[in-house]
Amino acid sequence: MQRIVVDAMGGDHAPAAIVEGAAEASLAIPGAEIILVGDAVELGKLLPRVRHDGARVRVHHAPSLIEMDEKPAEALAAKPDASIAVAAELVAAGEGDALVSAGNTGAAVLAVARRWKLIPGVRRAALASVYPTELRRGDKDDPFSLLLDCGATLDATAEDLVTFAIMGSAYAKMISKNRRPRVALLSNGTEAGKGPAAVVRAHELLLEATELNFIGNVEGLDIPRGVADVVVCSGFVGNVVLKMLEGVSETILRLGRYAHKQNLTWRIGLAALKPALEQLKSVTDWEQYGGAPLLGLDHLFIKAHGRSSARAITNAVKVASKALSGDLCGTIATGMRDFADRAAKADIRAPGDPDGKVEAPT
Amino acid sequence: MQRIVVDAMGGDHAPAAIVEGAAEASLAIPGAEIILVGDAVELGKLLPRVRHDGARVRVHHAPSLIEMDEKPAEALAAKPDASIAVAAELVAAGEGDALVSAGNTGAAVLAVARRWKLIPGVRRAALASVYPTELRRGDKDDPFSLLLDCGATLDATAEDLVTFAIMGSAYAKMISKNRRPRVALLSNGTEAGKGPAAVVRAHELLLEATELNFIGNVEGLDIPRGVADVVVCSGFVGNVVLKMLEGVSETILRLGRYAHKQNLTWRIGLAALKPALEQLKSVTDWEQYGGAPLLGLDHLFIKAHGRSSARAITNAVKVASKALSGDLCGTIATGMRDFADRAAKADIRAPGDPDGKVEAPT
Repeated sequence: MQRIVVDAMGGDHAPAAIVEGAAEASLAIPGAEIILVGDAVELGKLLPRVRHDGARVRVHHAPSLIEMDEKPAEALAAKPDASIAVAAELVAAGEGDALVSAGNTGAAVLAVARRWKLIPGVRRAALASVYPTELRRGDKDDPFSLLLDCGATLDATAEDLVTFAIMGSAYAKMISKNRRPRVALLSNGTEAGKGPAAVVRAHELLLEATELNFIGNVEGLDIPRGVADVVVCSGFVGNVVLKMLEGVSETILRLGRYAHKQNLTWRIGLAALKPALEQLKSVTDWEQYGGAPLLGLDHLFIKAHGRSSARAITNAVKVASKALSGDLCGTIATGMRDFADRAAKADIRAPGDPDGKVEAPT
Repeated sequence: MQRIVVDAMGGDHAPAAIVEGAAEASLAIPGAEIILVGDAVELGKLLPRVRHDGARVRVHHAPSLIEMDEKPAEALAAKPDASIAVAAELVAAGEGDALVSAGNTGAAVLAVARRWKLIPGVRRAALASVYPTELRRGDKDDPFSLLLDCGATLDATAEDLVTFAIMGSAYAKMISKNRRPRVALLSNGTEAGKGPAAVVRAHELLLEATELNFIGNVEGLDIPRGVADVVVCSGFVGNVVLKMLEGVSETILRLGRYAHKQNLTWRIGLAALKPALEQLKSVTDWEQYGGAPLLGLDHLFIKAHGRSSARAITNAVKVASKALSGDLCGTIATGMRDFADRAAKADIRAPGDPDGKVEAPT
């Protein structure tokens, strides 16, 4: 029986939406037990009000909680018994197999990173996010790609980037049922030599020391196009890119305000498009994709969006269950061992670090 | 008399559109002489066909040219007498004051970087690009901001980022007639401590060692919003961001294809919006903003877009003329001296380099 721990107190609509989503999951996923972590009294009142499988949902008390806008490190230090800390501890102690939270991202990531172990060979964890694309992919025909890292590891070495590629590919294979996910490195040009030293080096390693379906470098424009199923970059670049993708529809509406103010067609167009654009924006909120997985630790953490509805939480729990069934962490561990073996064997040249007043832009 | 050298052979519509644009500039800018570099025979045929001031346009012969898709370094090595190389040499030899080219970006940037000197204190040059924003700015009410670096310096140190801020601010002040350009660092969070070590350190330096109108860190979403007049980042990040901005309208149209295929309102909206979106896209082509300046060298190089029309070339020459009139390079040199003095005096703490399995994401 899988045991999926859910932080009931994290998220804009917590605890009500979280409890409702978890309750629905208890009915939808036969093989899983759900442990709701949070204020026992409050949860004890909410749970009976929603349909759920009483045999497979239970409450674990945590007296305090961390607000969405609190500073991660400080908040964790001040509240060792906050729901996210207690939830992470449960999994670390072997009383749970995976964790789902819609709460403060920084606090949640720190809470699990401090208590859980890195998978052997993984130097840094990565937070992967999904984003909508034109092309659909995998058996499930998913209209999104995976972007990682999105902020857990700001500076990434070549080996970190390869690790992200291995982890992202394993996740896409398991969740999107995509047999050979196309993996790409985000760079400033498609040629192998393009990019900072770490990216150039990672390109070599991906070609020579992994068996991933590596399609090479992609550029900014290729991200929304969906050229790749898994796009790999440092957490700093990924965070900037993700925040731009989340705002793409908003951006058009905003740009529209200054452009063509006098143009009636444009105004009609925007008016007609507004609801669709809003819907488009919601796609990037991961509602139907279960959230952003933190990859590289010995347990899976799914970070559901702060604005998560009950449905989003149910989906996040379903994704966690699917990853547990496929032994995602074990698959990643195998991939890392395979990479280490190949890298040791392969004769890989040192990366070329460009110098001079400028580098040749694309 | 200003002498502005124009690479007549570079660009998708070269040499005809370049000659036409330069000819128009000779009539529009009284104080400038324009030197067209390229095939003398071909240019000798084209020039008489367009209205121009014969006293202020002349042709300087260059027997060969570099195509848009050639590899920069290889092409420059193979064709030492290509128009862009000869044009850059003219300026280096003191026979010209500024250079405009719509040709191969990498080749042009390398050609000038190899022949011109860096302004004292500047370690690396930066290619700045303009992009459309919601907010308008400066006396000229410009609807765009400046983003730098966009690919000339992939990895940027804290000092490089501060240098970019100083150069971008000077350019915005001069070209947009914006007295106190708002300068921001692109990061993964608005707090001072957010970002890789170089960004955190640059934040400190900008506050303590410059008198720029530094508004702090901005995130991906703030770029199209126009929160800042000058956004500073490494060339790698800037290149990725710029390519996403250039494709924002295209992205919406593409996403629209998979979303709401059955929704008539959406289809009508897209149809009505298409021309406006196309127009919006063209805004990012720098047509009316004269192109992307390469900043940090002892002469100004304006990289006009490859698709530049005659009008875009005329505007690029106007921008070059305006920068020469305001002594842009001298202003940047002064700014760098000022920064060096303040940095020496200021007591600046060493940057905090985060460590551990993860960093706290925003």
